[in-house]
Amino acid sequence: MLGLTLKLPVWQAPMAGISTPELTAAASNAGVLGNIGAGYLSGEQTEEFVQRVKRLTKAPFGINLFVPEKVQADLKQVETAHQLLAPYRRELGMEEDESGMPAAPSAFNEQLTIVLQEKVKVCSFTFGLPPEEVIEQLKANGTVTVGTATTVDEAIACERAGIDAVVVQGSEAGGHRGAFQQPESMIGLMSLLPQAVQEVSIPVIAAGGVMNGKGVAAALCLGASAAQLGTAFLVTEESGAHPLHKEAILSANEKDIVLTKAFSGKTARGVSNRFIKEMQKREHALLPYPLQHVLTSGIRKQAGRLDEKEFMSLWSGQSPRLGKRQTVDELVIHIAKETEEALLAANATMQNMKRSNH
Amino acid sequence: MLGLTLKLPVWQAPMAGISTPELTAAASNAGVLGNIGAGYLSGEQTEEFVQRVKRLTKAPFGINLFVPEKVQADLKQVETAHQLLAPYRRELGMEEDESGMPAAPSAFNEQLTIVLQEKVKVCSFTFGLPPEEVIEQLKANGTVTVGTATTVDEAIACERAGIDAVVVQGSEAGGHRGAFQQPESMIGLMSLLPQAVQEVSIPVIAAGGVMNGKGVAAALCLGASAAQLGTAFLVTEESGAHPLHKEAILSANEKDIVLTKAFSGKTARGVSNRFIKEMQKREHALLPYPLQHVLTSGIRKQAGRLDEKEFMSLWSGQSPRLGKRQTVDELVIHIAKETEEALLAANATMQNMKRSNH
Repeated sequence: MLGLTLKLPVWQAPMAGISTPELTAAASNAGVLGNIGAGYLSGEQTEEFVQRVKRLTKAPFGINLFVPEKVQADLKQVETAHQLLAPYRRELGMEEDESGMPAAPSAFNEQLTIVLQEKVKVCSFTFGLPPEEVIEQLKANGTVTVGTATTVDEAIACERAGIDAVVVQGSEAGGHRGAFQQPESMIGLMSLLPQAVQEVSIPVIAAGGVMNGKGVAAALCLGASAAQLGTAFLVTEESGAHPLHKEAILSANEKDIVLTKAFSGKTARGVSNRFIKEMQKREHALLPYPLQHVLTSGIRKQAGRLDEKEFMSLWSGQSPRLGKRQTVDELVIHIAKETEEALLAANATMQNMKRSNH
Repeated sequence: MLGLTLKLPVWQAPMAGISTPELTAAASNAGVLGNIGAGYLSGEQTEEFVQRVKRLTKAPFGINLFVPEKVQADLKQVETAHQLLAPYRRELGMEEDESGMPAAPSAFNEQLTIVLQEKVKVCSFTFGLPPEEVIEQLKANGTVTVGTATTVDEAIACERAGIDAVVVQGSEAGGHRGAFQQPESMIGLMSLLPQAVQEVSIPVIAAGGVMNGKGVAAALCLGASAAQLGTAFLVTEESGAHPLHKEAILSANEKDIVLTKAFSGKTARGVSNRFIKEMQKREHALLPYPLQHVLTSGIRKQAGRLDEKEFMSLWSGQSPRLGKRQTVDELVIHIAKETEEALLAANATMQNMKRSNH
């Protein structure tokens, strides 16, 4: 599919702020598509990241970029949002924040230059569609382009823009919602995937709630060309997630996984904690993405240093009970085995029913 | 499974207010499990319904009962809720409503007597668990008992209560949420199903978003013993749904399907319309279930008579694009064929990848 030679129809989800060169390379070396979550990287950091992955693997890998969004906030809103965070900064022993408009520069154009220069095999986009000339340029350069959709209409928009494939993100998915059309919709993968497959001709990659071979088998049955797994890779040994983040997922149940705008101003899914709960009633006072993300950046970093998980963004999909502490290799081997077993078991159920009716 | 001899691992969802004896019998005659949605029926109506189904089919069928809930509202709340509906009653040419507390009697005990008397093969429960002696009595009488769960914990509670099987209802599902523990959770089937299968030993039936053989195949891969389909049966020719209800689903896309408490006071999923939109900002003033249901009953009936879909409860799951106008027989034949095809195609994908890597 898409000229990628994978051993399994599985993509490791690009997780901005979490995926490391080691994780991406381990995934690609294991025979699935490793992906770099470049969303928060500068151009220079993107270049270093890509080159480090290349030193660690000869297999194809992808990179995910955040399409920049226009954002507006007046100084009064910014001041209110600053004040909302002040007690948390104090509690974490941090200095008073500089007030004023947070700087949220996008490295999108620099990143694109790196993707072209390094001829990265796959380039996916989240939070929107790049300009058509960018898509053309990447394709001409041998890069497979991939969009992210949370509705069938967004998948159709990806196809119309000339993109090669689309990741459909079910409501189960961890981290940020990739929605780029209004209003935001929360559509379960069991509904979103077969409807997208029915309505577009490009390959559809299934994301949201899939953490093992049963999920991969289900995605294939629903017409997906591959399944993209985030949380399953997040809890592996090679992942760069904070140990308390991994632990929070592995000890959570599906009801602990909530939606929040508290960390970034954009809806995202993760394990509930004090920061999410306390900010819930104040969502109207948060800045729009990416300004809120910039504003909480110091708090999240300090929380990581202090091992204080109540102030970390503990992104997770809705299937935490399926998470396992293991290496990427072990995860991929398990998925390969389980996928075939799941298909065999499903087929046996159908055949047994047929037999008992004759 | 459960001593039922079905041709396919498929259950027609009991849809209170929509399923007719003809629909239930057509489903059972086609080789899947037909189900009666008895939720809103009196004891007498339940008896007539069951006996009519028995005249139409010799195959096993099930019945679904609503477990009664304690409900409280003071007269002031009731008055406000009445006033909220008054303009709609006027617009539909109805008389002023009698004010005062709406009567919401439960026929649960009478219905149980009928289920025992008629030895209905399967009895499922929604909105809670029946007392343990009821479960024991039904089982001793040869009836398979089935619970409804929206979280893994609710599925575990079903198993612990001694129930034989559990329907897990993904967030995609149409109609009322079967949640009976607080807080309500919206968990996609791709997450809910494999986690429930992992945590309970009783058979798990998958509900939510499944409308065709691809979905049935996916549910089997995720470990379900069967898939329960509501919307797919709702749009069949034999269904008792209002023609405008069927049409609303068949012309909807997944973004038109929303959650609302407007009709009953309990969260339910359906096609958005004027009543849902206008009541959205007034959800705080609605009465709790089932009082709001009783209060809007006249409006819904009048809307049906006047062919005014803006005031009907147009329940639907999140996969309306997969809906097809067809008979129950055609639906079941298509599902059988598609399920096998989906499993074959998924298996071929896996085998091709293996081959190209050798």
